[in-house]
Amino acid sequence: MSESADIAVIGLAVMGQNLILNMNDHGYKVVAYNRTVEKTKAFMNGPAKDTAIIGADTLEALVASLSVPRKIMLMVKAGAAIDAVIADLTPLLEPGDIIIDGGNSNFEDSERRATSLHDLGFLFVGSGVSGGEEGARNGPSLMPGGHKAAWPHLKPIFQAIAAKTDSGEPCCDWVGDGGAGHFVKMVHNGIEYGDMQLICEAYDFMKSAIGMDNEAMRQTFSNWNKGDLDSYLIEITADILGFQENGGYVVDTILDRAGQKGTGKWTGINALELGIPLTLIGEAVFARALSAIKEERVNASQILKGPEVGNSLAADDWIDSLGQALFAAKIISYTQGYMLMRAAADEYQWDLNYGAIAQMWRGGCIIRSAFLDDIKAAYDKNPALDNLLLDDYFRDRIHETQTCWRRVIGEATTRGIPVPAMSSALSFYDGYRSARLPANLLQAQRDYFGAHTYQKVNGDDSWHHTDWIGSGSSVSSSTYDA
Amino acid sequence: MSESADIAVIGLAVMGQNLILNMNDHGYKVVAYNRTVEKTKAFMNGPAKDTAIIGADTLEALVASLSVPRKIMLMVKAGAAIDAVIADLTPLLEPGDIIIDGGNSNFEDSERRATSLHDLGFLFVGSGVSGGEEGARNGPSLMPGGHKAAWPHLKPIFQAIAAKTDSGEPCCDWVGDGGAGHFVKMVHNGIEYGDMQLICEAYDFMKSAIGMDNEAMRQTFSNWNKGDLDSYLIEITADILGFQENGGYVVDTILDRAGQKGTGKWTGINALELGIPLTLIGEAVFARALSAIKEERVNASQILKGPEVGNSLAADDWIDSLGQALFAAKIISYTQGYMLMRAAADEYQWDLNYGAIAQMWRGGCIIRSAFLDDIKAAYDKNPALDNLLLDDYFRDRIHETQTCWRRVIGEATTRGIPVPAMSSALSFYDGYRSARLPANLLQAQRDYFGAHTYQKVNGDDSWHHTDWIGSGSSVSSSTYDA
Repeated sequence: MSESADIAVIGLAVMGQNLILNMNDHGYKVVAYNRTVEKTKAFMNGPAKDTAIIGADTLEALVASLSVPRKIMLMVKAGAAIDAVIADLTPLLEPGDIIIDGGNSNFEDSERRATSLHDLGFLFVGSGVSGGEEGARNGPSLMPGGHKAAWPHLKPIFQAIAAKTDSGEPCCDWVGDGGAGHFVKMVHNGIEYGDMQLICEAYDFMKSAIGMDNEAMRQTFSNWNKGDLDSYLIEITADILGFQENGGYVVDTILDRAGQKGTGKWTGINALELGIPLTLIGEAVFARALSAIKEERVNASQILKGPEVGNSLAADDWIDSLGQALFAAKIISYTQGYMLMRAAADEYQWDLNYGAIAQMWRGGCIIRSAFLDDIKAAYDKNPALDNLLLDDYFRDRIHETQTCWRRVIGEATTRGIPVPAMSSALSFYDGYRSARLPANLLQAQRDYFGAHTYQKVNGDDSWHHTDWIGSGSSVSSSTYDA
Repeated sequence: MSESADIAVIGLAVMGQNLILNMNDHGYKVVAYNRTVEKTKAFMNGPAKDTAIIGADTLEALVASLSVPRKIMLMVKAGAAIDAVIADLTPLLEPGDIIIDGGNSNFEDSERRATSLHDLGFLFVGSGVSGGEEGARNGPSLMPGGHKAAWPHLKPIFQAIAAKTDSGEPCCDWVGDGGAGHFVKMVHNGIEYGDMQLICEAYDFMKSAIGMDNEAMRQTFSNWNKGDLDSYLIEITADILGFQENGGYVVDTILDRAGQKGTGKWTGINALELGIPLTLIGEAVFARALSAIKEERVNASQILKGPEVGNSLAADDWIDSLGQALFAAKIISYTQGYMLMRAAADEYQWDLNYGAIAQMWRGGCIIRSAFLDDIKAAYDKNPALDNLLLDDYFRDRIHETQTCWRRVIGEATTRGIPVPAMSSALSFYDGYRSARLPANLLQAQRDYFGAHTYQKVNGDDSWHHTDWIGSGSSVSSSTYDA
């Protein structure tokens, strides 16, 4: 085997297979490897037949077939498996070789691996890969981060196989140091949780409040997909609502218990750690958790009553409002996601390019949407933009949509339709635009019961304690927290 | 020094000092120690003067003064300091001696310490201590967990110094193994975050929507404190609203930037980890985070508009509704907190006594309230109660209050007053009582883009995949998560 292959991919589950085929389509010579040799054989005799793809039965053969610096991409299950493959691989490599983790790894693991591999002289890249099997095959969104010295070697391949925007830009750019690539992928997934939950709330409102049938809902989502809400998730929602099998709609046969694999949860945890109010994604993750206790809900539905609901609403009167509510809440969700990325960039000292991130998400991935062009435009206009809501375009859109947004939440509240994501987005908006929040009372309470002290509105930075109960005590507790 | 002292306390910040004085009042002979000897001296010559309290200048002297099995309570800053003191202490102790951590430790640290100290032959107790300095002095809520063999030795002292309910029951009982005590304290603190946020939302509504002045609000909270909402936090809110200094209300001078020390955040993270929809506390933690970005809010308030607001509402027409909304949301908050404890008991294999926990919180601590009697009654009636909302009393109260609750949220939504906790509680309620949620669509989406498969409503447990786009693909991705 000559040392001429461009890149190797380890792990031949569907994502790995499809990335290899994609690279092959773009003229790269790829080495394919799987721990189970049968899987490699099946791939070579199946999808890889009559291609330039090379199968390797051992890691030694894989390494021997690569040009230097070697580029080896891991498409294996996130977690201990990654560390195991890295441990097997590193004794066979030379300094300067590049190891890429394309799994859904926790960004903290990628931070750790970047450091430990750097100490061994290797270049590590943790790359978000989004778009599912379809994206991997035909153009994923790729979010690579890690050792920037690896980027010139990877850039041609990654940008070739990545999805492209309508104007032909690749949905792949360098994200930042250490775990930045996997962090941005995590936020992508969190936003995906939010988008999906918002669509579910709109669907629930259509079904429960307006009484629409699947065909009418399919038509609505299909129309929405031609306007501001144009996006992959809206598009597939229309497909799903129209999909029939054996004369019935499949969507109606599906159990309402949402699964989750953890990246939404990670996003929520990170937001709590960094103190960023990521309320919408938090509610979306919790909504999946609530859906999961199906038996308990069925039981509760026999015992707990909602409001008396009158007639159904008229579609003509409500569909437009609902679309606007969905759009407004979506703006808030992305606003919060960008707030989290900004806080993470500060915390972990990454130099994130927010416009480039919007472009990476513009194609290939699950949250791809026309909307991301507007986000990119906002950051192109002002790369130091403090908050998406302060951009002229988004400010105007929120101003235009807020009446409908409030109307939908008010109606859902009256009718007993749960809208946790839409309403938490509104509470965030109303809080964010408040120069004064009631937290002065909260600070007074903390000072009252725990001598936590408070600052004053007069602008001086000092901390004050009031002897609220006349006990004369002014000692702040060092063990009591609130 | 004779070996006759009952218990030692290490750490003479205000909480440690007050617990010692409390123990002394109840006839226990306490040894006081602080790493800085001056602090011990100051305590002995100050608050401890003319008491039976013994000062120890060294850990050796402390250990020598205690009867066996030695009981040593740490009231030092949570984190590394606890491990450092334990490391200094253990070489001086004998098997069977008892180390109690009374700080606000993370329950996972307490789990770890319980295991490692058990291996060394010692008994470890991690105890929640709530009530701030006032509670520590006159009767805290104590939530001890860890090695149950320690409990007979501690019970007399702990139950003596603990707060008592109106009927004389101590607000202290054994919680469970390992870190169970600190876990229950963490949930207590999370609930405290929720209660405080709900009060702030009610205060904001009174001020912004009704236009009440501090005296009218003080009067309202004072009235509420005579009814269902009777609680320490409502009581001190009335005090705070009435508190004047130099002719002005102090509450109006306080900056609306809420601080936090982490236990609310921990509760939210744990709920995400365990998959329990703890939405209200999550929103309360995020509301503090939003309050903290004051400068950004002040800036945003110049740019982002709310709805056009008409006249103020009439107090007569709204105060009762507001109180009912607050009460309903509070029921949801405690419901979610109890759901989290139940999930934790399963996860960490603790045998929690839910009624006893309500009683521990009934007095001494920050969330003490009449309401906890009703929770205790619910679990006394049915210790295996699946969910607080399914108890007759709470079901009836939610049914009675829900019209007002919806009315208040609807009005806040229209007026642009943020009510994140009250409204997320309502969405939870409406979701929990839904036999069918829109998560069927979400599962269809996950199957569409990621071949994640789904279950059906027909009750069979198998997993299905639909070929939504006719690609023939049926391979589930092992690296793609959503």
